[in-house]
Amino acid sequence: MEAIKVVNRRASLKACLSGKKIDKADLIEVLNAARSAPSGKNQQPTRFLVVTDEALIKKLASEAFSEGNAMVGQAPVLIFACANPKDAIARDGQNYYLFDAGLAMENLLLAATDLGLATHVMTGYRETEVKRILALPEEIRVVAATPLACPPQKSYEEAAKDRLAGRTRKGLQEIAFLNTWGKGLA
Amino acid sequence: MEAIKVVNRRASLKACLSGKKIDKADLIEVLNAARSAPSGKNQQPTRFLVVTDEALIKKLASEAFSEGNAMVGQAPVLIFACANPKDAIARDGQNYYLFDAGLAMENLLLAATDLGLATHVMTGYRETEVKRILALPEEIRVVAATPLACPPQKSYEEAAKDRLAGRTRKGLQEIAFLNTWGKGLA
Repeated sequence: MEAIKVVNRRASLKACLSGKKIDKADLIEVLNAARSAPSGKNQQPTRFLVVTDEALIKKLASEAFSEGNAMVGQAPVLIFACANPKDAIARDGQNYYLFDAGLAMENLLLAATDLGLATHVMTGYRETEVKRILALPEEIRVVAATPLACPPQKSYEEAAKDRLAGRTRKGLQEIAFLNTWGKGLA
Repeated sequence: MEAIKVVNRRASLKACLSGKKIDKADLIEVLNAARSAPSGKNQQPTRFLVVTDEALIKKLASEAFSEGNAMVGQAPVLIFACANPKDAIARDGQNYYLFDAGLAMENLLLAATDLGLATHVMTGYRETEVKRILALPEEIRVVAATPLACPPQKSYEEAAKDRLAGRTRKGLQEIAFLNTWGKGLA
């Protein structure tokens, strides 16, 4: 049941980003977790651009991110999940590079949580500015970003405590149906 | 490091589906894991239609799924991740209900793996047929499906052994870049 504990322990912690360096081994571990995720036809379309250059992080934070997310400038690592949509299935207007990126990103978040590192998936940036600053190829889409940082608190638990206590989620009967659409499971 | 172990242990196991009933507590556990995933602006657009009716599962398997995925008809539970795209962020042609469904689905897969249950994310079905058979509202999109089953093998490890041994993934340097697009991290 350990993975389930980590699922329940993960919180979005943009308010808990210390500037302390991240061990390279930890960074590789979270990226390998992302790499292990399944993807449509195993096409593995997701790419992770890992920004560790301090000047680049500060520039992104001030020029590309919204004011409410500018605190990513404090993180030692800022990761962008990106993809070329052509690398993934697209069907009836559904572009599966987005779904595949979600599968991979969740693995990354959980591995980071397991290591006691703070993350926060966000899309609160202007994609055109991110692409300009990072000189991304035109065909690449930026799907989401997350800072990766040690929380300044004594432990991950202490950092996440308030966020988890205040977590709001729809009830199970609102999101899961049994055999018939709209018929609550629980 | 337990979540990371589960990430590495998860395999796509459509070839390992026994008809044995799934405990309701286990089903609720995997759905709650999905429910705990983050989502854009916490809009929680993903819905899970859990099919346990045997006749319905057989009908779906034979009329909606591709031949290569017809073995889902053996599973005691078939779960569809669905969403109304309007419930989620859409920006510059990127429909985040797909990304949000990926985040939630990965939690579901990992929780199931943790419980020793076989899953296999698939999109190998005709959406129009799934929607017809399940009488889904017109505005709802089917994002992905997974069977949920006990493997017939003695343990999850035994069931997943060959799949994990044969797993192919791009190298870390192909999917993760450092500060500059295309510049391998490792």
